[in-house]
Amino acid sequence: MTRIAIDAMGGDHAPFEIIAGAVWAAAEYGVALELVGKQDRIEHCLEVIQQEGFLSDCGKAGRRRRVRVDVKSLDIKITHASEIIEMGEAPGQAIRKKKNSSIVLTVNSVATGSSDALVAAGSTGAAMASSLFGLGRIPGIDRPAIAVTLPTMKKPIVIIDAGANSNCTPQMLRQFAIMGMTFSKNVLGVEKPRVGVLNIGEEAGKGNELAQNTYNLLEEEKEKFNFMGNVEGRELFLNLCDVVVCDGFVGNVALKITEGTSSMLFRMIKSEFKSDFLGMIIGLLAKPFMKRIYEKINYEEFGGALLLGVKGITVISHGRSRAYAIKNAVRVAKEAVETGVNSKISESIDGQK
Amino acid sequence: MTRIAIDAMGGDHAPFEIIAGAVWAAAEYGVALELVGKQDRIEHCLEVIQQEGFLSDCGKAGRRRRVRVDVKSLDIKITHASEIIEMGEAPGQAIRKKKNSSIVLTVNSVATGSSDALVAAGSTGAAMASSLFGLGRIPGIDRPAIAVTLPTMKKPIVIIDAGANSNCTPQMLRQFAIMGMTFSKNVLGVEKPRVGVLNIGEEAGKGNELAQNTYNLLEEEKEKFNFMGNVEGRELFLNLCDVVVCDGFVGNVALKITEGTSSMLFRMIKSEFKSDFLGMIIGLLAKPFMKRIYEKINYEEFGGALLLGVKGITVISHGRSRAYAIKNAVRVAKEAVETGVNSKISESIDGQK
Repeated sequence: MTRIAIDAMGGDHAPFEIIAGAVWAAAEYGVALELVGKQDRIEHCLEVIQQEGFLSDCGKAGRRRRVRVDVKSLDIKITHASEIIEMGEAPGQAIRKKKNSSIVLTVNSVATGSSDALVAAGSTGAAMASSLFGLGRIPGIDRPAIAVTLPTMKKPIVIIDAGANSNCTPQMLRQFAIMGMTFSKNVLGVEKPRVGVLNIGEEAGKGNELAQNTYNLLEEEKEKFNFMGNVEGRELFLNLCDVVVCDGFVGNVALKITEGTSSMLFRMIKSEFKSDFLGMIIGLLAKPFMKRIYEKINYEEFGGALLLGVKGITVISHGRSRAYAIKNAVRVAKEAVETGVNSKISESIDGQK
Repeated sequence: MTRIAIDAMGGDHAPFEIIAGAVWAAAEYGVALELVGKQDRIEHCLEVIQQEGFLSDCGKAGRRRRVRVDVKSLDIKITHASEIIEMGEAPGQAIRKKKNSSIVLTVNSVATGSSDALVAAGSTGAAMASSLFGLGRIPGIDRPAIAVTLPTMKKPIVIIDAGANSNCTPQMLRQFAIMGMTFSKNVLGVEKPRVGVLNIGEEAGKGNELAQNTYNLLEEEKEKFNFMGNVEGRELFLNLCDVVVCDGFVGNVALKITEGTSSMLFRMIKSEFKSDFLGMIIGLLAKPFMKRIYEKINYEEFGGALLLGVKGITVISHGRSRAYAIKNAVRVAKEAVETGVNSKISESIDGQK
């Protein structure tokens, strides 16, 4: 059985929501767990969940229900971790200093083969640094990158890098393209993924040095990358391509602005409907429709982003993740294990050398 | 009377919509015009508008009405330009080669004092290059930058640079902060504008080199800049600050992703309401509310972005601008003339040296 290691102490709602999401996933997807963190707190959470279950909105805004999981029937291993890496700590230093931190031991579980993949919702920097340090890079990959799946009108699009590397070279972005294509093909099932460069204009020669040089590099191997050229932010959601490469700074800004814009719009809509009595009634009628859209674009559905390029599967979840998001993150981890995305990346990189 | 020079040939809907918007603004805001472009085409457009008026949605999606303007009563000067710079041309080369292009002559009108400000909806690169070349920089400003006003839940926020400079230094971003503050204070009426750095985390030390060093630079003069630290993409719309600085590549991606996300959401909402009969009825009832939100975030309301740092007022409009957007762009140009934002920038830069 696939075993997923979970950093039970990482994230804004750790440990309870993290553990709740993990056992929920274990029951639903038939995976085994290794929960890493303060043993007494983990045991306490498991007891509460066994007895009372937990409340979750199941990704449906405002529709909370009690979820029951028979924890005793699951294959759960607990690994005690005496330390926690906090959000503010410098990742590199922190993982060297806190060898018994939950994230380091979670990664260790995958490194030693005890677990097949890991899910972490704490400090993204610490999850990346410990994965890089503990799992090592796939040969041929210079820098691992975060692949995020964004909803669009039709099928989801992959943005890579969404935050692992703030300073990049064109060669790195070329590797991101290879990893993103492998992910798109094997995990999302896109037959022949089309690659684009996130840029501020369509024409060649637009943008900063990195974007220009990446364009030239990918244009040289146009067919291999099914290269669509530059993609502007406005066109990101129009399905002009399946994989968009950019440096981690731009990718992270892009990702968070998408989140920020949609949450602002939903708040605007809510307050507009509340502006008069008729509006309140129409708003109530419109609610189920708005909810369906909310669910389509809700990051919780996607659960987590894969750190691609390390020798092991690391799923990085949103710091704000609650049980439902963690459940989906475990699903993403399981799919990544089953589709063998890492070995596929190794093969692709070998083939491209 | 304030005279605004208009590049009548620039933009996806040039020349008709550009000229229509310009004369509409002239009638409504009491400004004189200098229309620059192919004389016969401009004259023809003016005749049509005089006789038939033109259709405009007035920024209200789907509510088109016929606008009538008595062109003959307006103070309009026509300057013939035999050439046009196309969207794909390299700006620097193009403005040197096409000295009789509409954008070069439009800038020239401001440079010679014939007009007080200009509006351009064609190639952004050509508008910037010709403004920089034709008007010159304000002493103390190394690189002009584009200031864009984004709607948020409360008051609008200024993003600077939104696309003029793809490669920036921390010193440039510090100057952008000064220009953005001056704009926010004098044009938007924000008493004591708060500055933030667009970044991928809140803590100091986050982000790429540029963001880190800009943070340190502004932190040194914390009070002068009313410096709020790093602002993440998600928080952009939460009014944590009034001016956000970033390089033009990131700023342009941010701007266009905001546009892309909201237009995708509106399309999703539309298609969700169309999914069944009940939905269609509720959708019809909800339409006026959705429209009000659409109008709040519609870029056409903001009309155009100011290129700050040049010795003259250049308003750069969206390439897709139609009459209503151009009308608002002329309003922005007029306000910039009246508030004397350029001399205020000169003073601020002098005071900061």
